[in-house]
Parts: sequence; C-alpha cells; structure tokens
Amino acid sequence: MKRYERYAAEIADSIRKQTLRPGDRLPSVRKASASRGISASTVFAAYDLLESKGLIQARPRSGYYVSSHALGRGETPRAMAPGKRSTRVEISDLVFEVLGQMAERDMVPFGSAFPDAALFPLDRLARAASAGMRRLDPWRIVESLPRGSAALRRQIALRYTMNGTAIHPDELIVTSGALEALNLCLQAVTKPGDVVAIESPTFYAALQAIERLQLKAVEVATHPRDGIDLAALAAALEHHPVRACWLMPTFQNPLGSLMPEANKRALVELLARHEVPLIEDDVYGELYFGATRPRPAKAYDRDARVMHCGSFSKCLAPGYRIGWVAAGRYAQQVQRLKLMTTLSAAMPSQEALAMYLNDGGYDRHLRRLRDALEVQQAAHQHAIARHFPAGTRVTHPEGGYFLWVELPPSVDALALHRQALAHGISLAPGHLFSSDRRFSHFIRLNCGHPHDGRGAAALRTVGRLAHALVR
Amino acid sequence: MKRYERYAAEIADSIRKQTLRPGDRLPSVRKASASRGISASTVFAAYDLLESKGLIQARPRSGYYVSSHALGRGETPRAMAPGKRSTRVEISDLVFEVLGQMAERDMVPFGSAFPDAALFPLDRLARAASAGMRRLDPWRIVESLPRGSAALRRQIALRYTMNGTAIHPDELIVTSGALEALNLCLQAVTKPGDVVAIESPTFYAALQAIERLQLKAVEVATHPRDGIDLAALAAALEHHPVRACWLMPTFQNPLGSLMPEANKRALVELLARHEVPLIEDDVYGELYFGATRPRPAKAYDRDARVMHCGSFSKCLAPGYRIGWVAAGRYAQQVQRLKLMTTLSAAMPSQEALAMYLNDGGYDRHLRRLRDALEVQQAAHQHAIARHFPAGTRVTHPEGGYFLWVELPPSVDALALHRQALAHGISLAPGHLFSSDRRFSHFIRLNCGHPHDGRGAAALRTVGRLAHALVR
Repeated sequence: MKRYERYAAEIADSIRKQTLRPGDRLPSVRKASASRGISASTVFAAYDLLESKGLIQARPRSGYYVSSHALGRGETPRAMAPGKRSTRVEISDLVFEVLGQMAERDMVPFGSAFPDAALFPLDRLARAASAGMRRLDPWRIVESLPRGSAALRRQIALRYTMNGTAIHPDELIVTSGALEALNLCLQAVTKPGDVVAIESPTFYAALQAIERLQLKAVEVATHPRDGIDLAALAAALEHHPVRACWLMPTFQNPLGSLMPEANKRALVELLARHEVPLIEDDVYGELYFGATRPRPAKAYDRDARVMHCGSFSKCLAPGYRIGWVAAGRYAQQVQRLKLMTTLSAAMPSQEALAMYLNDGGYDRHLRRLRDALEVQQAAHQHAIARHFPAGTRVTHPEGGYFLWVELPPSVDALALHRQALAHGISLAPGHLFSSDRRFSHFIRLNCGHPHDGRGAAALRTVGRLAHALVR
Repeated sequence: MKRYERYAAEIADSIRKQTLRPGDRLPSVRKASASRGISASTVFAAYDLLESKGLIQARPRSGYYVSSHALGRGETPRAMAPGKRSTRVEISDLVFEVLGQMAERDMVPFGSAFPDAALFPLDRLARAASAGMRRLDPWRIVESLPRGSAALRRQIALRYTMNGTAIHPDELIVTSGALEALNLCLQAVTKPGDVVAIESPTFYAALQAIERLQLKAVEVATHPRDGIDLAALAAALEHHPVRACWLMPTFQNPLGSLMPEANKRALVELLARHEVPLIEDDVYGELYFGATRPRPAKAYDRDARVMHCGSFSKCLAPGYRIGWVAAGRYAQQVQRLKLMTTLSAAMPSQEALAMYLNDGGYDRHLRRLRDALEVQQAAHQHAIARHFPAGTRVTHPEGGYFLWVELPPSVDALALHRQALAHGISLAPGHLFSSDRRFSHFIRLNCGHPHDGRGAAALRTVGRLAHALVR
C-alpha cells in the first residue's frame, strides 16, 4: 500500500466509525501535510482517492468535507422479520426463471451475481495456467484427488495464517467453487427432513440447497448493517431442532451486512453451546473497503464446528471454479462426499491458481479491485439517491459489490424486474431471497460493473420505471 | 489409419469373430501381398503389429499362426447370480479404505481406475489451455454457465454425429467429469427409497451414489463377455418398482463386457416399455480394439429416455475433470441440479479441450492409445496365464484397460489385496463391486500401465501370493 493510500484508508476508517461525520471539514492540505509530516501531493492524492469513492467532496475555495451521503445518507433498508415456523422451501423455479432471463450478452447486469470480468487478471492467470500445466507431474493428478492440489492448499492455508486465523492443513478441501463446498457441507451434516437456520434475506443458493436436500428452513431476521440478529437466532435454536446454520457473517449476499467481531464471537459460542455446526459462506471477505480483512467466524472456532467456505471466483478467477472449505471436524465426511460426486476440482485451474499465488501479485490485484468496487459503489449509491423514488433506502456495505435497495412498499420488484428486462436491464428482485417471497419491494443491485454512460443511463431507466410503479 | 493398420485390424476382427481360430495359419507374406495387392513390407508391418498385441505368433521357418491364447485362451470368469431382492447399500467405507490404501506414488497401480498418464498428450493440452484462456472473452464465463462452453459442446456433438448417433445439441450438458453427470442423472430421476437396477458386478461409484442418495439396488446378473442378462433384467423390472437403470453397455467396469448391438437395441426397447430411464455410463467407449467404435445404447433411443454420459478423463485429459451427458428428456432437470451444486465445469479445462479438439489430432492420439492398451492387455493376460494359480480365469475385453480375474474360490481377494499392498502393489478386490461382497475371489486388474520390468515383477508377486492363498 502506498503512503497516500494508507492515509486515505485512515480517513475512510474514521468516516466509517463516525469519528468524522457528514458535513465535517477535513484539515486543509497544508495543515495535514505539516501535522502528518507527509508531502502536500500525498495529501492531495489521498483526498482525490476519497473523493472518487464518494466519501468526501471538495467545495470550491472552502476545502474538503465529508460527503453528506457518505455512509450515513438516507436510511438503512428495514429488516423484515420472518415467520417463526420452519418451512419447506420451493424457490428454485422462480430463481431459474429470473436467472434464465438475465443470461444475455447485451443486458446491463444489475441482477448478476458476478462483478465485471475486466476487473480480473485473466491474462496473467492464463499464463500461469499454461506454465502450471506444462510442469505438471501426472502423478499429481492422482495424488490430488482426495483434498486437492497440495501446492494450492499450501497457498490457501498461508492466507488464513496471514489473516490471523489458524486452520489445520488437513481440514482444507479444494472444491469446484464455493457452491460445491457449501452444498457438500450441508449434506454432510443433515438428512432429509432436518431443520437448517439461515439468514433472512439469504442468498438464494442456500434456499435451493435446502430445497434439493429436502430440508426445512428457519429464517432468522438479519440486519442490513450488522448481520444476523443473535437473539432471534438463540430463540430459533431453542424452539427448533436446528441441525445446521448456513450464514454469511461477512458482506452478506444480498445485504452486504458485516457482523461486528464481538457478534461473530458470540455467534460461534452460541452455536457451540447447542452443538450446531456453522457453514460459513465467506466468498466476499477479501473485498473489504476498510483497512484490514474482517476476521471470519472461523477465527473464534474452538471446537472445530465451523466449516469455512471460500472461493477465488469473486475476487480473482471467475470461471476457474475453485473454492474450498476448512471443514473442521467434518472434513472427512465432506471429502468423501466430494470423492463420490465430482471426484476432484480441475487440475488446470488448481495449477494456475497455485502458480499465480506463488508468484505474487495477488494482493496488488486485490487492492486495485477493492478500490474499483468502492468507487463504483459510491457512484451507484449517488445515482440511486438522485433517480429513485422518494422513500427508497439503500445499504452502505463496507465491502463486496451488492446494494440492497428498499423501494417504496407499493413497488413490486418482480414487476420492476420484468419491465427492466424489456429495456435490456437485469435486476435481482427481493423475491429470490426468502422462502416466502417477503422482500417483494426490494432489489439487489450489482455495482461490480463500471458506472459508465450505459450503466448510468440504465440506472436512470430503472429509477423512472420504479417511479411509475409507486401508487 | 495407415494401410498396414487397416489390414491388421481386418485380421484382428476375423480372430475376434472366430473366422480365424487359435492355431490357424495366416497366409504367407508373399501370398497375402499378391492377393491383396499390397507390398510385402505392409504385410510384414501388419503381422508385426498383430504379434505385439499377442494375437498371432511367428513360428520360425513355418509362418504366422493365430496365438493359442488369442481371445479364446482359458475360460471366461463366471457370472455370479445376485440375490433377487432389492437391498440397501453400505459399501462406501470399504471403498474408501481400499482406495485410500492405494494412493501412494510408488505403488504398482493394478488397483487404480486410471491408465498411465504418460499415454496422454498433456503437453499439447497445456498449450491449448493457454491459448484458449488468453483468447477467452470473459462474457463466455457467464454465457457458458447453464450447459457448458458452446465451442466444446459443438465438438462433442460432432463426435456423436461421426459415430452415427443423433443427439440434439440442447440435451448436452458439460459436467465436472462423468462422475458428476452420472450422479446428477440419478438424482434427477429418483427420490430416497426408490429402486435402481444395476449390473452385477458393477462400478463401485454406482453403489456409492445409491448409498448416498438413500436408494435401493436391484443387482442384475451380468455376463463377463456380453454384459447384462436381459432376461434377468426383464424379471427385475417385473418384480420391482425400478425407477432407473445405471448400466455400462460398452466395456463395463470391472468386467470389460461389451453388449452386442442387438442386445443394446433390445435393452432400450425393454426399458422404453417399462418407461424406465437408462443412465448409460460410456466412459470407455473410445478405447475399442475393433475396427469401429461400438454404438452406445443411446443410438437406439427413440423416446429420449437414455441419459448418455461420457468423459475425456479416460481417453484424453485426466485431471481436467470434463465430462458430459446427453440427457434426453431429463436435460432440464439435470442442468438445474448442476447449476445448484457446482454451477459449471471449469473454463480453463473446457477451453483447452475445445481448442484441442478443434485443432485436430484427437483421432491420431486415440489410435496410438488403443494400440498401446491392446498390447498391454495381451502382455498382462499372458503373464497371468503363466504366473497365477491353476483354475484362474481372466476376461478378454475388446476395449478399455481392465481385466476381471477369477481366482480359485478359496483365494480371498481382500487378503490378497492386503498382502499385495505390503509389497507395494495395489489391487481392486472383487468385494468392491457388489453390495453383498459376493465377488470375494475376484480382482479387477488395471492393465493401462506398461508391462515393464517393474510391472512384470509385480504381477509375478501377485501370482505367488495367490498361489499361497489357495487351500
């Protein structure tokens, strides 16, 4: 990290922690330069960066101020309390209908689950793939079957260590993307008819997995900023024979919520008391805008009940289909299920990533990616504030690339989605994110694509369509 | 195919069809050359090739004769009739125990499921992977999600067409190896408690899938040469509410059996009458020793009830984890299950294979591979005949790289397997291939590795150990 980036990160953290509040004036460039012992051009570069992220604004002949909409703009979308009963899940048809509609090349991908592929070092990865495969000792294909490439697992384990989370190398299993890891974990600890606790709203793949495995879901209220409501979860654990929890404590999909560290610790302790395994979906954890990577719940896991699932698909190598799980005490069951269903993840992908990670450059790539996503998030929030109907609320996630947008209650998100489609724009209607289609006036909006002319026009169009749907 | 190869293939076919029988004398080189209008050196090259495959033998100053052990040698291992009831399956622990023991680099891999990796064009594939990934339009990652890379599916469809089997491009789904395809197919057409008909013996992955999905198995007697007993299958269909059939009509694992075309046709018609879907595992179909590729059962499928599963893992690209299914009327269900569990197969693997297949060279590679496997099979059969106890019977598959070896009834294959392990040799004991461990004096022997000094010594050791176990 360069000096101006470090300085900018400090200020951004102060804004996030509300030490600096909207409207506050920042020290002048001269003053900051003197008091910090850094050059004026470094201060300028830092302020410039913060401005591009929408966190501060320059006022001519007056100086720099924390933006009125910086994080605090407007109100946070509401949490919507789910029913208290466990329910069978039937969501897949709707999910496939909606996903099928958005798979067209010319669509503006606000509904997509992926960020812009141009943000990834696909060329360097391709060179690494080529080098890795040419040096491949064929025996390694056999050797890698049970848990995945040893070189790749070493690199993954190293990153856990760097982030202060201790894992045992033997609990690490490479999978075909995090989606496979999550599904295998769920199957490893449940049988048909069992109850699983999930967030509300939740990532639709969790709902689909529960449906596919014939499980029942208990949905637990989840706050758009702080994540799952621990009191509500405790109540659910008291009232239901919960056999597993599937949660995203860090940059939840669709909310973008981040559980405070204390809550993560309390979550792990609560589940340990009930002897309930936690399936932790942490695929957005590397995409933080703050100074350091948020620690996963796994960091507080003392009795190996947390299955921590990660992936390179959202932060480095989409399409390579490499994820993993640090599965704690369930590692052998998960590994066996994998051997029985897909045998192993693809070697070219594993070799490419092992080589890329070993050669260095991943952290530099991640810094650029996070900066781009933060800038894009600010631009999208700004445009939503301008063009969407009064009463719209939007999240301010501290990482990832999803915005959760609450529209006025009379706007049906499925209707909005269908009208947007007709304009070549995809949206992810809130209906997809709970078993009872409760979030019917919410949309998840992907801001992982540049807010260029086309994107800006599309957002104006969505705003116009939403206006027309208000009654 | 070169002229001498074509001539050799003709003679080999005559031997297989028993137009030429063991002990028959082949025409002299001069005579063959004159009658066929080919050069003497072409005839020599053909005879040389046939000799290397163990099909003919030169007798000094006398000429060439069909080998005494060519195909007809000894007796075929016996079929062992299974019980008539459907059974719960509990085999996974044993399978994992045995597979775990053989995963060591220095092991002589008679128990392995893979042929020698040196037989594959890994270098050319690595170059194709590199070129493919550099030319990758990132959008294709999204576009390829539902069914797999369009370019790869085109190449796969083309091979069906070349082999005279019509499939609709839309029924083709690329998967993470055939194992995923087979598992998805089974899940698509069953629910827990359902009955599935399988061969006996059968590939242990079928037993594991049935166990994992909590299904019941009806095992149907299967002949080591001609495959499943259609009368026995018809009886099973009468007596059990069979919801699916999982079969390997071509080069069955472990038997190597090949159903005659008429039987394949009758099989498809029988299942159509009962409206039972057929999951056809055809991963060894390209490894035929005859003149043409055996047609799959899918070729006779009129009402889209056959799910034909293939793979590149056994014939081109081990470790790339690319398989597929032509899933007929079940395509949408299979595709949805895939999207929910692993999303998609890895793009680097898909791009590499699409590019390799497009550039040509696959058929040349396959010819070399088939020749190598046929030569190795003959060498292994020969050595087994010399070194194994009297009463040993071995199959003579017309393709693939497995021998199914029936030892004298008093030899326990698990004991033999454990003793062989101590000598650094793996075996696949017959116990793995049925739910009731009925094949307890059988082993499956991988002859996909060169019969070099080390392999030959290992086979002598196994023979010696088997001798000592005879009572």
